[in-house]
Amino acid sequence: MNNQDNRADTVNTRNAAGLTDRERVIGEKLKIIPLGGLERIGMNITAFEYGDSIVVVDCGMAFPEDDMLGIDFVLPDTTYLEENYSKVKGFVITHGHEDHIGGIPYVFRKINVPIYTTQLTMALIENKLEEHNMLQTVPRKVVQFGDTIDFGEIQVEFIKTNHSIQDAAALAIYTPGGTVVHTGDFKVDYTPVFGDAIDLPRFAEIGRKGVLALLCDSTNAERPGHTMSEKTVGATFDRIFSEYGKSRLIIATFASNIDRVQQIINSASKYGRKVCLEGRSMVNVIGTAIRIGYVDVPDGTLITLDELHHYPPEKTVLVTTGSQGESMAALSRMAANLHKKVKIMPGDVIVFSSHPIPGNEKAVSNVINELAEIGATVLFEDAHVSGHACQEDIKLIYSLVQPKYAIPVHGEMRHLRAQAAVAESLGIPKDNIFILHSGDVLEISEEKAKIIGKVQTGTILVDGLGVGDVGNIVIRDRQRLSEDGIIVVVLTLEQYTNRLLAGPDLVSRGFVYVRESEDLLEEATRTVEDAVWRCLDRKVTDWSKIKTEIKDDLSGFVWRRTQRRPMILPIIMEACP
Amino acid sequence: MNNQDNRADTVNTRNAAGLTDRERVIGEKLKIIPLGGLERIGMNITAFEYGDSIVVVDCGMAFPEDDMLGIDFVLPDTTYLEENYSKVKGFVITHGHEDHIGGIPYVFRKINVPIYTTQLTMALIENKLEEHNMLQTVPRKVVQFGDTIDFGEIQVEFIKTNHSIQDAAALAIYTPGGTVVHTGDFKVDYTPVFGDAIDLPRFAEIGRKGVLALLCDSTNAERPGHTMSEKTVGATFDRIFSEYGKSRLIIATFASNIDRVQQIINSASKYGRKVCLEGRSMVNVIGTAIRIGYVDVPDGTLITLDELHHYPPEKTVLVTTGSQGESMAALSRMAANLHKKVKIMPGDVIVFSSHPIPGNEKAVSNVINELAEIGATVLFEDAHVSGHACQEDIKLIYSLVQPKYAIPVHGEMRHLRAQAAVAESLGIPKDNIFILHSGDVLEISEEKAKIIGKVQTGTILVDGLGVGDVGNIVIRDRQRLSEDGIIVVVLTLEQYTNRLLAGPDLVSRGFVYVRESEDLLEEATRTVEDAVWRCLDRKVTDWSKIKTEIKDDLSGFVWRRTQRRPMILPIIMEACP
Repeated sequence: MNNQDNRADTVNTRNAAGLTDRERVIGEKLKIIPLGGLERIGMNITAFEYGDSIVVVDCGMAFPEDDMLGIDFVLPDTTYLEENYSKVKGFVITHGHEDHIGGIPYVFRKINVPIYTTQLTMALIENKLEEHNMLQTVPRKVVQFGDTIDFGEIQVEFIKTNHSIQDAAALAIYTPGGTVVHTGDFKVDYTPVFGDAIDLPRFAEIGRKGVLALLCDSTNAERPGHTMSEKTVGATFDRIFSEYGKSRLIIATFASNIDRVQQIINSASKYGRKVCLEGRSMVNVIGTAIRIGYVDVPDGTLITLDELHHYPPEKTVLVTTGSQGESMAALSRMAANLHKKVKIMPGDVIVFSSHPIPGNEKAVSNVINELAEIGATVLFEDAHVSGHACQEDIKLIYSLVQPKYAIPVHGEMRHLRAQAAVAESLGIPKDNIFILHSGDVLEISEEKAKIIGKVQTGTILVDGLGVGDVGNIVIRDRQRLSEDGIIVVVLTLEQYTNRLLAGPDLVSRGFVYVRESEDLLEEATRTVEDAVWRCLDRKVTDWSKIKTEIKDDLSGFVWRRTQRRPMILPIIMEACP
Repeated sequence: MNNQDNRADTVNTRNAAGLTDRERVIGEKLKIIPLGGLERIGMNITAFEYGDSIVVVDCGMAFPEDDMLGIDFVLPDTTYLEENYSKVKGFVITHGHEDHIGGIPYVFRKINVPIYTTQLTMALIENKLEEHNMLQTVPRKVVQFGDTIDFGEIQVEFIKTNHSIQDAAALAIYTPGGTVVHTGDFKVDYTPVFGDAIDLPRFAEIGRKGVLALLCDSTNAERPGHTMSEKTVGATFDRIFSEYGKSRLIIATFASNIDRVQQIINSASKYGRKVCLEGRSMVNVIGTAIRIGYVDVPDGTLITLDELHHYPPEKTVLVTTGSQGESMAALSRMAANLHKKVKIMPGDVIVFSSHPIPGNEKAVSNVINELAEIGATVLFEDAHVSGHACQEDIKLIYSLVQPKYAIPVHGEMRHLRAQAAVAESLGIPKDNIFILHSGDVLEISEEKAKIIGKVQTGTILVDGLGVGDVGNIVIRDRQRLSEDGIIVVVLTLEQYTNRLLAGPDLVSRGFVYVRESEDLLEEATRTVEDAVWRCLDRKVTDWSKIKTEIKDDLSGFVWRRTQRRPMILPIIMEACP
């Protein structure tokens, strides 16, 4: 562990030295500024600003929406942090999911301040940093639950919670302007598989001292009741292992759900099966968890993919990625018979230990259809519980923390609104509930809370190696291209004389079968020729004018004949005489 | 009604005249041939063939899969019917949903035989035929439940069922080779809103006489229990109308669910609200249903969109399309504030009287988010029941019909497999259960059933006005274009001499921002220039060779620099000297 947290130390010293600093900030108020997230695209990164200090909670990335064609992933725009670099004291990370840590390797190229987080979260961040060759450059420090990090004007305490990944933390953020509690993503699990239950007494203590605002996870705020304990899934696994003792088992789940994998290992060990992990992220994450002692694997239980055929199928269980139907994941490749080493057989039992994330339902269903086609049995009931608090759990946290203001976070607008309704039902006045959009600056104090402005935020699209070089115009072009294709019109004019030397030629892609539509394309060519000659006869020398004429005439013709709107791209070349 | 069913009459005469025909077919066996459907894309069209007769059940169309870029809808390939045109005696249609009638205006351009179906279904078909100017050319006849249509060697009886559209029928298909029962899409509703409950006694009678095979709806075969009665939704509406008496109500549902709209009208009438229908298909379908007396509207209840503002919001209910989040539907336009006449207000109550069809979850959620953002209340619980039979209902039908063979239909592979498991649990031997793929020819008799071959089937993509002129290559091009865009390379060579007169010029669309990537494009141009000069220096005259060199060099360069793979389209023009 490379604890280069000198920057935070410096900060402490400077502040300790400057009582005037403290005095100066009287009259200052706490500002909460979401820089991503809180909107449809769920990048979690929120600035807490007081006086000259900014502490940032989380640094996520998002996966592209359906209409972001060709985009691999999406990063938050951190212009505000860059412009206020000197104020930024550090990042605190609540847990190790991609939407909370995925942005680090990109954002930390521009902003290099210390990262504070719990052991597993840090290990996962370090995997990323290593991939990007940044392990030596990013200062960081592992914290224990109960630790408070002193950022000068702001102090942050890490509080134990439960979630679908181990080592998740809530944060108490102390400032001279008041205390804020941020739950992170959480659930209330009284019987967690690993480690302690959520530290409810600490929430109560902090609440008793007075909390200005609660930022609480909204993901399941539409669901009544309590979220079940992760341990209930273990019971389901035991039942499945016992019932399907004569079949090979293949269990798909999230690589990051280490407790889930632990429970599979437990059942496998109990029922005498070998466990094989498959899928790059599964091997990586569980490997990391084993290394730091967060998974307990009995000797001889784990086998490699190459050892799999040494054992009878009914004595093995394969734990794999692909529970979301991701086309490149291991399970999808198995289902499509594209996996190099595992072939699904009739009689195999495949367990989906997950629910589809909204938007993935169709992809998951397609994989299930492929598995059904082969004759495998597919199970999904009771093999998953959520990692997020339902309504009654949310009410519990509100009741312990007793915040003056409610700021629902993490979820789509419908979920944030649902939590707002829960908060209102608990007696928090409507005016004290704030749903923030990216960039909103919420100024908050005992007296009042108000959105006082907006800072620059946005999404940076990552496509291949390019970060941010694909924008709206490019995406719009791709959408257009994806719907009706393109017709390229090329012609060559002689320099000075504008004599037509070659063309116009039409080439199309993604529009219609050329062979079967020769007539159409011939007529289209004549339409373009007419437009070109009309321009040349009138001595039009402005090429952009000629291009416009070609575009208008051709798109009109194509629409009348096919009711399609391919992109039309006229290119005029100039040849030396 | 234009009953041009002379073709069927002719058929009857011919067969009545020819006892030899009947004799000849001794030894013939019944063949069941799905020409679409039974696979992921759910176009329902199935041929039942005996001797010289083919009767076709349903004639559906499908909506495109996500990867069918730019495609509007998908039709079945009916080559088999065209090649056996003289055998095709008629079409029988089970009900009026698009996946059962949508293909008619296209298929009946090539195959024109009589259509037989129930009153509402026929009215909806006639709406389509009128749109396509085919009302005068397609022979058709309305049938009553209990009617048997005589197609000579094949007779088809219409049996009353329940479904999410009125007038749905199951079919008993009688042939000398045995009887087959086809449930169509159905549920068991003992208390339907309109008309009678499913004719279970008739299923029992037919079963008692001996049924070879049952083709049964699999949509809900994964769900245990019974499907609730449509009337339960009426009770939910009453509760909502009573609870939200001070808000405007907007209820989104399927235009074709006429009973659902009837129940909204009932509640509106009871609670003193005016009803306004919005969305093209809603107005069309309900208009048709009112015209033929399938909806009962108290005088003065219906108002037009223009009259809406004459009434206080809390005295109105808007019934709208868009329950699936379809981007062009009325509700989506309202939620996005793009609707010309209806603006969603904070306090409006929007009811989703539907479940998202798999694949639409994200789109529905996006609309809900937009509504939540405006401050509207969104309800979806208990405001919908399915139109398809669950496991216990399916078991009921099997128990009444007592088929020798089970042929699960209607649903994805996972659903067909689930029904197969239900059939097996009822004692039907595994070998007597058949899951058919498009084109499979299942030959079936008392002695045995076997897939004996495959006929041509497939999907015809419809894009704009074009039917079938967009195929795999075009779609693949669109996918490529949608991911990384296109770079067009143009150059002009002089005829005979191959002297480079102009270019090479590079133009890109959907690739990168040109302004921010000038260096990249300049280098790319140099890469292409090198390739061109290399060819010209070597006196390469084969243009396809030059194009290949350009493509290879440029795509290599672009991949190394950006890790993207835009389509590269080299165009060489020839100029007269």
